[in-house]
Amino acid sequence: MAVHATRIAITSEERRARVDRLKAHAAAEGLSGVVLFDPCYILYYSGFAFMPTERPMAWLMNRSGRTAFFVPRLELEHAQGLAEADDVLHYPEYPDQTHPLTLLGQHLTKMGISGKIGADDDGYPWVFGYRGPRLSEVTGATVVPVRPFIEDQMAIKSLAEVALLRESVHWAHLAHTLLHRYTVVGASETDVSLRATTEATRAMLDAIGPIYRGQSTFESGASASYRGQIGRGAAIPHALATDIRFQAGDVLVTGASAPLWGYYSELERTMVLGPASEQQRKFFGHMLAMQDTAFEAIRPGRPTSEVDLAVRAYVERNALQPYAKHHTGHALGLRIHEGPFFDSGDHTEIKPGMVFTVEPGLYVEGLGGFRHSDTVLVADDGIEVLTYYPRDLESLTLPT
Amino acid sequence: MAVHATRIAITSEERRARVDRLKAHAAAEGLSGVVLFDPCYILYYSGFAFMPTERPMAWLMNRSGRTAFFVPRLELEHAQGLAEADDVLHYPEYPDQTHPLTLLGQHLTKMGISGKIGADDDGYPWVFGYRGPRLSEVTGATVVPVRPFIEDQMAIKSLAEVALLRESVHWAHLAHTLLHRYTVVGASETDVSLRATTEATRAMLDAIGPIYRGQSTFESGASASYRGQIGRGAAIPHALATDIRFQAGDVLVTGASAPLWGYYSELERTMVLGPASEQQRKFFGHMLAMQDTAFEAIRPGRPTSEVDLAVRAYVERNALQPYAKHHTGHALGLRIHEGPFFDSGDHTEIKPGMVFTVEPGLYVEGLGGFRHSDTVLVADDGIEVLTYYPRDLESLTLPT
Repeated sequence: MAVHATRIAITSEERRARVDRLKAHAAAEGLSGVVLFDPCYILYYSGFAFMPTERPMAWLMNRSGRTAFFVPRLELEHAQGLAEADDVLHYPEYPDQTHPLTLLGQHLTKMGISGKIGADDDGYPWVFGYRGPRLSEVTGATVVPVRPFIEDQMAIKSLAEVALLRESVHWAHLAHTLLHRYTVVGASETDVSLRATTEATRAMLDAIGPIYRGQSTFESGASASYRGQIGRGAAIPHALATDIRFQAGDVLVTGASAPLWGYYSELERTMVLGPASEQQRKFFGHMLAMQDTAFEAIRPGRPTSEVDLAVRAYVERNALQPYAKHHTGHALGLRIHEGPFFDSGDHTEIKPGMVFTVEPGLYVEGLGGFRHSDTVLVADDGIEVLTYYPRDLESLTLPT
Repeated sequence: MAVHATRIAITSEERRARVDRLKAHAAAEGLSGVVLFDPCYILYYSGFAFMPTERPMAWLMNRSGRTAFFVPRLELEHAQGLAEADDVLHYPEYPDQTHPLTLLGQHLTKMGISGKIGADDDGYPWVFGYRGPRLSEVTGATVVPVRPFIEDQMAIKSLAEVALLRESVHWAHLAHTLLHRYTVVGASETDVSLRATTEATRAMLDAIGPIYRGQSTFESGASASYRGQIGRGAAIPHALATDIRFQAGDVLVTGASAPLWGYYSELERTMVLGPASEQQRKFFGHMLAMQDTAFEAIRPGRPTSEVDLAVRAYVERNALQPYAKHHTGHALGLRIHEGPFFDSGDHTEIKPGMVFTVEPGLYVEGLGGFRHSDTVLVADDGIEVLTYYPRDLESLTLPT
């Protein structure tokens, strides 16, 4: 019997199986290999999390399944230390005297990747001041998009991925609990967010210990914050935070998450500072009913659009159209937003193993925004709501 | 005499002048208009800062300089509230029943943008699960890249932009001072980073007050942190942080910044916990000399490559090649990395108004990483080093 260390993270065996599926797809499409530039896809297939910059990074796989990282000198030891590709190819620097994509083209030829190549993008995207040629230009190859296949593959989560999402839910819950606890009239959203984030991060790091890896470019801990949706500003669903101080009567929309080996859950709640007014009660109640409508509509075998259409029907029955500004939810995992979407125009079949947010919202100018977001897992017979933060108005009414 | 409120932020007049230059470029190139999807470019020309998602957003300008935002319903009031485009066009949702890019194509036709269109990308990038057609497909137009022109335009900073960068330098300095003060043997990098970030952010928000806008998607305050480059890990320039506890003898590489209306400065320092060993002194000294070499080489009229070549010559004279892993620096502003680069392969002419980081580094396995980063402004007769944090080893040696 083997004694394995804790397998909280995705194992290299699981990643190998992911690569095998991509390899089979490439074979079926007659591709000589695959080139990926997207940091999220590279993490998915190789376990390599890094900070993307103007220096191109790529993950390569040829017809026979041999893999390589293509990295700048800066990332050489980092990629080598991971040891999850057969080769680590490196170039001196970008821009340098020979453009990295020219060198990439040479490596691809050596690996037999030519003629018809699968890629997420036809070249490295022009980020952080990067400029460069298309992959098709440096290789003379036909570049076939593989994003749709990859996104579909990523949409079905394994047991290990769901375990990481559950873990993310716990720490988001803690961060949100602290945010909730520290929110009082006169405090500023920034202070409360930073305090809740600091304490939740400390607790998470002490609980998981040195094995913890966020594997996110921007965060290494649990966080909870306000979405800039406080009081009147609440009518703007995606406002940026600006240190507003809480006042009695405010409607507050929160957000909490934590990256665990790259995986993100999503938890959002609508809270009211002080007894809710009649209008606030009314819209809060409709928002809850809309979310319940969505929960009930999510069933394996149905198209994702039906979930959104069910919510839309509720909105129309109750003449709430002026207040509804977005669809019902999106998939998530290694990205906080992934496809498919609970949207009237997305007819993807709902399948067991998919993980979605359910977050219909109502936005009423001068009154507030009303949106909960819960993370749900599609099971064989319906859904499991992974987030378990109280949803009812009483629990979410703060004393003044 | 007019009495203006404080003009700390970029004025709409300045943005109008930026748009006029883009319009002139479009005219010179025979373009019927310009379509921009990049959030950073949209902020530059319109002052609109938003959270990019799978819902396409675009900024449009036609031949006669008429501008429009193209936004999802979700962002309608947000864009309207800003009122810095002649029109705000909106679509219901992505994916929805009609693809937003189809609707964008119809709006472009109405605005007379057809035939030959300037754009930063041939379509909205496939981020957050977005999938969609190319701009050239929905319009039938020829799409001409405008990124090089825009990047060149953004590279020369105005007085107002430099003022925001100076402001960013102050708050990064404060955050770094606190990080420095709280770093002691046994503390964890995460705790020290969160404490310094929280306190510096609070001070900045109290000093600038409610007019403050970060206009950054991910941050609304000053921050200072370790770059995961602690002790042995220091040999990896871009490691991700992992809650390491400080030990006597560690070499630490820090980073600090603060977004001010979207503008970022950069400050990084190498610190040593306890008296530096002879080897640590040696590499610290070389790193300082490399930075001085770069400072002296930056002169208007020279190509940016000469700065890197001067540093390389120093590296070669002192047989430091095994420890040098990247070029000498990059421009910055609305992005923490922009072009041009201090790189042997970048021959852009250095001009007054350009702002760069100067950050040559040495990375020695088992010993540590050695890198300072300072933000410099190119003046008519040389440079001004905007950052003013102590650089010498004595100031950066922490007690144990």
